[in-house]
Amino acid sequence: MQHTLVKNVLASEKIHQEYTLKGWVRSFRSNRFIALNDGSTIHNVQCVVDFEQMDKDILDQVTVGAAIEVKGTLKESQGSGQRVEIEVDEITILGTADPEDVKLTILSPKRHSLEKLREQAHLRVRTNTFGAVMRLRSMLSYAVHDYFTKNGFYNVHTPIITGSDAEGAGETFKVTTIDAANPAKNEDGSINYKEDFFGKETNLTVSGQLEAETFALGLGKVYTFGPTFRAENSNTSRHLAEFWMIEPEVAFCDLAGNMDLAEDFIKSVISYVLEHGKDDLEFLAKRQEQEDKQKPADQREPMSLLDKLNFVVENNFKRVSYTEAIEILKNSKPNKKKKFNYLIEEWGADLQSEHERFLVEKHFKCPVILFDYPAEIKSFYMRLNDDGKTVRAMDILFPGIGEIVGGSQREERHDVLLEKMKALNIPKEELWWYLETRKFGTCIHSGFGLGFERLVLFVTGMTNIRDVIPYPRTPLNAEF
Amino acid sequence: MQHTLVKNVLASEKIHQEYTLKGWVRSFRSNRFIALNDGSTIHNVQCVVDFEQMDKDILDQVTVGAAIEVKGTLKESQGSGQRVEIEVDEITILGTADPEDVKLTILSPKRHSLEKLREQAHLRVRTNTFGAVMRLRSMLSYAVHDYFTKNGFYNVHTPIITGSDAEGAGETFKVTTIDAANPAKNEDGSINYKEDFFGKETNLTVSGQLEAETFALGLGKVYTFGPTFRAENSNTSRHLAEFWMIEPEVAFCDLAGNMDLAEDFIKSVISYVLEHGKDDLEFLAKRQEQEDKQKPADQREPMSLLDKLNFVVENNFKRVSYTEAIEILKNSKPNKKKKFNYLIEEWGADLQSEHERFLVEKHFKCPVILFDYPAEIKSFYMRLNDDGKTVRAMDILFPGIGEIVGGSQREERHDVLLEKMKALNIPKEELWWYLETRKFGTCIHSGFGLGFERLVLFVTGMTNIRDVIPYPRTPLNAEF
Repeated sequence: MQHTLVKNVLASEKIHQEYTLKGWVRSFRSNRFIALNDGSTIHNVQCVVDFEQMDKDILDQVTVGAAIEVKGTLKESQGSGQRVEIEVDEITILGTADPEDVKLTILSPKRHSLEKLREQAHLRVRTNTFGAVMRLRSMLSYAVHDYFTKNGFYNVHTPIITGSDAEGAGETFKVTTIDAANPAKNEDGSINYKEDFFGKETNLTVSGQLEAETFALGLGKVYTFGPTFRAENSNTSRHLAEFWMIEPEVAFCDLAGNMDLAEDFIKSVISYVLEHGKDDLEFLAKRQEQEDKQKPADQREPMSLLDKLNFVVENNFKRVSYTEAIEILKNSKPNKKKKFNYLIEEWGADLQSEHERFLVEKHFKCPVILFDYPAEIKSFYMRLNDDGKTVRAMDILFPGIGEIVGGSQREERHDVLLEKMKALNIPKEELWWYLETRKFGTCIHSGFGLGFERLVLFVTGMTNIRDVIPYPRTPLNAEF
Repeated sequence: MQHTLVKNVLASEKIHQEYTLKGWVRSFRSNRFIALNDGSTIHNVQCVVDFEQMDKDILDQVTVGAAIEVKGTLKESQGSGQRVEIEVDEITILGTADPEDVKLTILSPKRHSLEKLREQAHLRVRTNTFGAVMRLRSMLSYAVHDYFTKNGFYNVHTPIITGSDAEGAGETFKVTTIDAANPAKNEDGSINYKEDFFGKETNLTVSGQLEAETFALGLGKVYTFGPTFRAENSNTSRHLAEFWMIEPEVAFCDLAGNMDLAEDFIKSVISYVLEHGKDDLEFLAKRQEQEDKQKPADQREPMSLLDKLNFVVENNFKRVSYTEAIEILKNSKPNKKKKFNYLIEEWGADLQSEHERFLVEKHFKCPVILFDYPAEIKSFYMRLNDDGKTVRAMDILFPGIGEIVGGSQREERHDVLLEKMKALNIPKEELWWYLETRKFGTCIHSGFGLGFERLVLFVTGMTNIRDVIPYPRTPLNAEF
């Protein structure tokens, strides 16, 4: 028989209607009140048992974590805390959960640390916090596809296994079928990659940008949304070895248009979850409030989660050139008082996380778009400005998160691009196809990359990136 | 200045309106008619030039492949073949395309083989055929997310890098940062994977199912849509080393519900493209018709592309048990006349592609769902039937494609699952977390995997899987 989702039962106006529900027991109070959850919503439905009418053997198996089927009638609730409840007619035990075993897990009804949740990542989606985070992650993911589709973009699945390190940024993972214990070798003792699956060295993509560009130069507006990889040995709360990235790429679009797109996109997907994810957001907002109470005043969030999200949606991002930003930083208190780990002394300095956070959190107190960076500290494919020393790059910085978007107008001039590649020793044999797109009807085009997990961090108010992805991959950790 | 997409100009009713368009020249006839395309649609917009009023230097650069900006006025077209056209006021050359160079590429305006398109995969999205295929692929991708979201599913990003070979099926790619030329070794000479990035051997996922199951057992209904990998040395028109897979997983759902879901899902996404991708589908239908004319009569498609898609949407899939299928095959003409490469002699035989095609294309002449397979030839996690010899597995077979879906009800009983793993030497240490989900409120649940490229093949009528993914990865090929 068909069952009804808890979400729909809780929203139902059909008092006296019979429902069948299936879910997991979150708690069972006074041999009378079962809190049942099926993952469709953060809220449990209260199922009220007349224990005198119920088989004791069955009731004994209604324990925390057990899967049960409940048949009953929708009633207006007499108790506080819920509008409706289910008056239970019949319970069927689907799967038991031994209370002694449950005690050892995060399913037991008490507050568990996020660290402990990570150790039991296969069960953590059954907790309120992680369940809410994962529902919001899913909503955000849909909002991404929805935004781009409604704005005329085509989704492109760029390759995950590639022969080139697109950005030359960071370490890559090798992909191979060669047996390291017994590899085929050349006469000079080097590995013979001709014997490898693809007949050459391959690795996991760090970005789909270059391939996405080839598609933008045919379909006009495209975006990718896929996994990307960095074999960096960074054990921080903001880095993952495997993460999901969103990369739109737009033909006939300059840097200003790129900034407009990024800002509109971010506001739109946040609006989407404000509209569709209210229950989960409210739960996480309360959670953050409680966490904050245990922190010293200066470490507390300046705004509640919902206020913060509404603020981002309702206010313009501040657009600041790199040159202006350097002036602000040079004259800032922490720079003058030598509080920065890296002091800002002159134009050309690469900005560190501490500088970005100062600009966003202390100086402007809103999302900031920095643009026109020194060419020296940015990638080869970025459009050189007429000043010959800056490129049309932009980074979007968010409070609490730091860089959430990195993008640029792309160098569309074949000769300039070729020179840049030569200067940086990027072999043109490897990127012949990328260069060729500049020979056949090249045009101004732009794009950006947005780290999806950083967006989820921002929206959920979580602070460790390991808590916003189902099974995080980090140095020395690929469990589950 | 903002430009308007060709798609929107062609749909416009605003005769005499001024428009700015940007795109690539597909052809330039009689120094008068520019066919302009910007990728937003399969159709070009005809831009009519009064060449006596136009700068000759500019006109000389309006060549096939060049990127141009056109300002002009929308007019009702006098010529046949289009409703409206643009009367050109001004042309700006954005990026030239040297006609001598263009001649060597697939951009040149003549019919190129699909093989040649693959060699120039960075340009092929600018051809009619591949452009149409990629727009339809994108629409299908959106339809997938839309279907699941509207039906209460949550999207889960299961890990790409894993420590386990989920299905034990097929070869996997290793993911490593170890230098094969100089790996860290243990005392016994074996590779010391403790020195590898994740501290152990890892590989690319072959399926997100097991992780998706853990999420279904908390969120209820979930789906994955991500890349999966097989290091099989199969150089066929139906296999890729890297492909995208859709894997829904549903708690409290049995095999019959799983079949209902799969059928409804497939019909729904095909309906979506029939509604939203009409122009591209019509183009590909015509293309297939033309291709067919050059084939012997018995190799032609029995239905036009659009008829085939409508047929799938409008008719029920035929549900046939494995046991029934074996009877049909045993008594079939090709079996009796020994035309099959693998003759069907008894119950328990694994079905080959030739058998599946016979059932679908000759016998039933419609999509077929085979179910209740022998346990011996299926995976460890499939629910054992009470007969003790079959499992609640199902495969969906499509004409021209073969297997497009493989799914099952999952074994939810801890003891049965453990026994099965023991019998197959699957170490329980590796899948402890998977086993544990059967200890804490286990329940009936089901899911399936659908190879996205096979769906795109079916919908576009293409015949080689390399032609429905941007940059195919196959043995000895990871170009671009």
